[in-house]
Amino acid sequence: MTEKEEIRRADGCRLPDEEQKKADVKFMRAAMAQARKGAAIGEVPIGCVIVYEGKIIARGYNRRKNDHSTLAHAEISAIRKACKKLGDWRLEGCTLYVTLEPCPMCAGAIVQARIDRVVQAAENPKAGCAGSILNILQEKRFNHQVDLTRGVLQEECSDMLSSFFRELRERLKEEKKARKLAQAQTQSQDEGEN
Amino acid sequence: MTEKEEIRRADGCRLPDEEQKKADVKFMRAAMAQARKGAAIGEVPIGCVIVYEGKIIARGYNRRKNDHSTLAHAEISAIRKACKKLGDWRLEGCTLYVTLEPCPMCAGAIVQARIDRVVQAAENPKAGCAGSILNILQEKRFNHQVDLTRGVLQEECSDMLSSFFRELRERLKEEKKARKLAQAQTQSQDEGEN
Repeated sequence: MTEKEEIRRADGCRLPDEEQKKADVKFMRAAMAQARKGAAIGEVPIGCVIVYEGKIIARGYNRRKNDHSTLAHAEISAIRKACKKLGDWRLEGCTLYVTLEPCPMCAGAIVQARIDRVVQAAENPKAGCAGSILNILQEKRFNHQVDLTRGVLQEECSDMLSSFFRELRERLKEEKKARKLAQAQTQSQDEGEN
Repeated sequence: MTEKEEIRRADGCRLPDEEQKKADVKFMRAAMAQARKGAAIGEVPIGCVIVYEGKIIARGYNRRKNDHSTLAHAEISAIRKACKKLGDWRLEGCTLYVTLEPCPMCAGAIVQARIDRVVQAAENPKAGCAGSILNILQEKRFNHQVDLTRGVLQEECSDMLSSFFRELRERLKEEKKARKLAQAQTQSQDEGEN
């Protein structure tokens, strides 16, 4: 680590309040753009960016189905890229923006990477580990706790997820209807032939 | 998934008790062999294997320092390989053997992968998430809970870790001593010249 880097890391990663709020919205929009990439290939739309010294150094989106990999969550992909970029398993001085509250694996990875700050949008009542089920990010008995900001662009990110699941349900319903119709046609054809 | 696979997965992954105990020791020895690979390259010796249908399908060991990656824990590497092998993000029907109680990231990944069973050796009082700090593996509010066996080859695996840290401390002490000696020599040389 250079001396400059050391000073910046020790400084933490917060700007003055109003400036920080604007920056948080800007970076959450970048995370949403990642989430949309996921939706475009049929994945649950979850996106993430990691910011260091005011710049995005890594991006990721959910690719679990397409990659057939448990590890292809948005946050894990972004953490992998950020480690490569900084050449360090420690991501001190970084802020992670994610459109949905992290699952236990991703929350654990964030703590392991010693990421300073997490900004999240939608909450995840079924598996969230930034307060919903557990709060892994701020567990005092671990050797690192994260500065957590919740609810940035929460509604937009929740809507994106709800729309995805609504469309998925409608598509599955249409497919089922089409299958039933095809079956009925085959059956009436068979009856006509007999 | 083929029908055969479906039946095997539904069967769970346990053999009769005595047979299972022998198999657990055998597979934990394989995980220890992985851990030694880590130690050989200066990493904290932690190893892991994943077993499916009685065979090891993936191996991993800690490479965090060498790979400069938060994600290079033994369990994460093994899970990545197992997903590739089975072509699925779900590792149902698998048993994971690990020489040290999983950290929050790895415990979370195990739950996400829906691994049926975890067999662990040494306990990890500082970061363990199979009961020491949290019990992510068996948290009832998540959509998956793991069948957990603790303490298989516990002493051998703990000793391997203790030896590693003892040798590391001794090496650091020796290096410090050598540095001090070199400094003293340079100083006395300088004084001789003046």
